[in-house]
Amino acid sequence: MQQEPLEFWFEFASTYSYLAASRIEEAAAIARVRLRWRPFLLGPIFVSQGWGDSPFNIYPLKGRYMWRDMERLCEKYQLPFRRPSKFPRSGLLAARVACMAAEEPWCPRFVRAVYRANFAEDREISQTETIAEILATVGQSPREVLTSAESPENKQRLREQNQWAVVHGIFGAPTMLAGKELFWGNDRLEDAIAFHLHSQTTHAG
Amino acid sequence: MQQEPLEFWFEFASTYSYLAASRIEEAAAIARVRLRWRPFLLGPIFVSQGWGDSPFNIYPLKGRYMWRDMERLCEKYQLPFRRPSKFPRSGLLAARVACMAAEEPWCPRFVRAVYRANFAEDREISQTETIAEILATVGQSPREVLTSAESPENKQRLREQNQWAVVHGIFGAPTMLAGKELFWGNDRLEDAIAFHLHSQTTHAG
Repeated sequence: MQQEPLEFWFEFASTYSYLAASRIEEAAAIARVRLRWRPFLLGPIFVSQGWGDSPFNIYPLKGRYMWRDMERLCEKYQLPFRRPSKFPRSGLLAARVACMAAEEPWCPRFVRAVYRANFAEDREISQTETIAEILATVGQSPREVLTSAESPENKQRLREQNQWAVVHGIFGAPTMLAGKELFWGNDRLEDAIAFHLHSQTTHAG
Repeated sequence: MQQEPLEFWFEFASTYSYLAASRIEEAAAIARVRLRWRPFLLGPIFVSQGWGDSPFNIYPLKGRYMWRDMERLCEKYQLPFRRPSKFPRSGLLAARVACMAAEEPWCPRFVRAVYRANFAEDREISQTETIAEILATVGQSPREVLTSAESPENKQRLREQNQWAVVHGIFGAPTMLAGKELFWGNDRLEDAIAFHLHSQTTHAG
């Protein structure tokens, strides 16, 4: 039986997605779990909950805590971190690229490089030049990839992916989806992999 | 040098506080960390953030997820769990008792029994009879304890404790406070203990 992939739903503007995106490929490989990379946009989902901005900006106490928590967790995971001078940054263009390239072998490297640009190098990931530079570093032709990513078909594909996020009940990022089971947050990465492995074993038996 | 205690701030209405309250005494004992039990009320803090109810009720997707997450985590930690028929329940009376008895050796057992009543036995912890029954099970005289707990001095003590929560920037429960360092959520219990141990060692050196 072909194993169903564990779905990894992430948003490029999300701080805790940076942690999970940097860790998930190795964790899944060790557990021999196949991944499906699922970029999406939190903005429209937040708007439907009545938020016009990141909750970390709307609730300053929570925001202050989150930045300190990120410092500590990046140190724990040995990930580079610099608090970005702008938050949140639009991950729309990067999400279009990742949506188009989700099955490509270079996609995980691209995703991690975008997160690093945002949360360790304080670069403006909403700008085409930044994404083009990152594409070049992962061995891709920026012009070719960006043309496909910005095509009407691919824009529509990301919109549909976002509708799927809503259908699955996703309300935050990162979210791991194992069958119909949601796991929200970098803190649930290991639990999601364990649950997925167990459910696959059970169904295969 | 006398070791500073790690402060454990909890709210009896909070689901994730149930998990941390059930685990922290053993985890702290293994690490030889002294604890200070700090009951407080989230209600006034939520009101100051513009919420008149638990965010798990205001945001139904988040609420639905939280109940499923609690089921999974209670299974993982081998804690009994039954989704309460009412949420949130007022933890005011229980918090007054725990505030008064924070230094008593029976306090941790009382705290865990109240959480179990709320989240495993679906009992109404806001009622005096429930708290009286729990006090008896931990070997205390209900009448005596409740009279002290409901005294003006002790009511004021809990109000002051709540003001301290605000001063420390506490915005949710459970929160572990190691010096000035906040750790929010059951997920941070181990990190909080490790941080506290490290900071105590460093300062003692």
